[in-house]
Amino acid sequence: MAVQVLSVKQIEELLKVEFPQIFNAQSGVSIVSVTPEGCRVRQAYQENSIRPGGTISGPTMMALADFAMYVAVLAAIGPVPLAVTINLNINFLRKPSQTDLLADARLLKVGKRLAVGEVTIRSAGEDEVVAHVTSTYSIPPRS
Amino acid sequence: MAVQVLSVKQIEELLKVEFPQIFNAQSGVSIVSVTPEGCRVRQAYQENSIRPGGTISGPTMMALADFAMYVAVLAAIGPVPLAVTINLNINFLRKPSQTDLLADARLLKVGKRLAVGEVTIRSAGEDEVVAHVTSTYSIPPRS
Amino acid sequence: MAVQVLSVKQIEELLKVEFPQIFNAQSGVSIVSVTPEGCRVRQAYQENSIRPGGTISGPTMMALADFAMYVAVLAAIGPVPLAVTINLNINFLRKPSQTDLLADARLLKVGKRLAVGEVTIRSAGEDEVVAHVTSTYSIPPRS
Amino acid sequence: MAVQVLSVKQIEELLKVEFPQIFNAQSGVSIVSVTPEGCRVRQAYQENSIRPGGTISGPTMMALADFAMYVAVLAAIGPVPLAVTINLNINFLRKPSQTDLLADARLLKVGKRLAVGEVTIRSAGEDEVVAHVTSTYSIPPRS
Repeated sequence: MAVQVLSVKQIEELLKVEFPQIFNAQSGVSIVSVTPEGCRVRQAYQENSIRPGGTISGPTMMALADFAMYVAVLAAIGPVPLAVTINLNINFLRKPSQTDLLADARLLKVGKRLAVGEVTIRSAGEDEVVAHVTSTYSIPPRS
Repeated sequence: MAVQVLSVKQIEELLKVEFPQIFNAQSGVSIVSVTPEGCRVRQAYQENSIRPGGTISGPTMMALADFAMYVAVLAAIGPVPLAVTINLNINFLRKPSQTDLLADARLLKVGKRLAVGEVTIRSAGEDEVVAHVTSTYSIPPRS
Repeated sequence: MAVQVLSVKQIEELLKVEFPQIFNAQSGVSIVSVTPEGCRVRQAYQENSIRPGGTISGPTMMALADFAMYVAVLAAIGPVPLAVTINLNINFLRKPSQTDLLADARLLKVGKRLAVGEVTIRSAGEDEVVAHVTSTYSIPPRS
Repeated sequence: MAVQVLSVKQIEELLKVEFPQIFNAQSGVSIVSVTPEGCRVRQAYQENSIRPGGTISGPTMMALADFAMYVAVLAAIGPVPLAVTINLNINFLRKPSQTDLLADARLLKVGKRLAVGEVTIRSAGEDEVVAHVTSTYSIPPRS
């Protein structure tokens, strides 16, 4: 888990091609920083992901966590677009504020076949955890 | 768990007001049927939820499962729009086909404070399970 | 998922060697039946797994579910003792009765590298689900 | 989450009465330290929790994580023996060494009805995470 293989810029280039559904101008998703052990990504506050009462929807947070894990996995193992999520477990803890979301992914294991990590989601500028995720990616065999 | 409180039509009316983000003309989501113990919902195949290789995205399936659970909870306990997801665990099992998705929610427990269920997602017309979800909703105190 | 590779008797022989910690005369665990898609196992009611109020402990149910999945995986893929649990998610739904527990495992996927299943735990003679589990096993490469 | 209600000694006294099944002279479980936000507990290495190859069993780790969460919840909310686990999700990451296990629980939320935390399990003296757990406890209404 000690080497960062791809930079933010390289991951952005890859995502524009491989992940255009979530990584595009309209999605409001961006990569803040990447390290060998994880990354921080941001979801801009958008009207269309709001539920009554001003809450950001659960699926918005699940998509953000999945994105954060994918970025962390790419950074750690390189351009393996066919890595796929096999498990995601999310606990929703608090109602997020009406502002951007920050998601911090941390890899707990990067094996030959599986990568496991946790993602902590907070409202930008706040300390309390809004949602906590653990997720497992399957890494395809590399030749 | 023996009484169905709301009909499909009543739930649809409620969702148009309370859940417009996912339940609208563009979302492709619809309610197929409702029973006291669960429901079936459908996600129409849409170009914008596709990943390279024709796979439907994980977040699309997570959103569909969350929606299915919400419909099942509403059907069982009535119009409680503030019921919120507190946990969702998803296992992605197979690559879905390039067609609609069907999600079958089944309530395992409907208590005073918590409702727990499982959701099985399949490609329309196919038997194999594409994704399996368990989820817990918190039910607000009712006066 | 169509072939049952091992019989109850073959699995019992294997477990006595490979899984003596849980499969022994004192454990109270037994295999009721096995099919290509799953199995039923039983945990005898024992004083030492009881909590105040007569509840059977959570760890007893987690161990039983893990055992059920292991039996189901062995039945489906044959004698692969090094198959290991990589994820287990359990929802505790109701207080079990002061009697034996029955656990029904059902395999949702048996792939080359991963097997995923769900386990439903009930008190013997009762219909309501006491606990619901999903679990993933990693299958080592076979030569 | 700012106040520690019970000390290690007070929790030990409570557990001897309420949790004798796991907290007894034979279990090998002890409380190392407690803070308002979590705790550290230890599982002594024992022959009877070993699987072939020297691996400590999954159920041993699940029981330890459940115990750690219970101690953390008691420390934060006081003597509420009827707090019960409603969900536990565990990812097994690495084979533990043949030595004691240390489990660090950290509370992510302590609400009126639910407490959510994560537990990180390591082999004593080692940095790498052996298993990672998230768990939710239901807190009974208090008068």
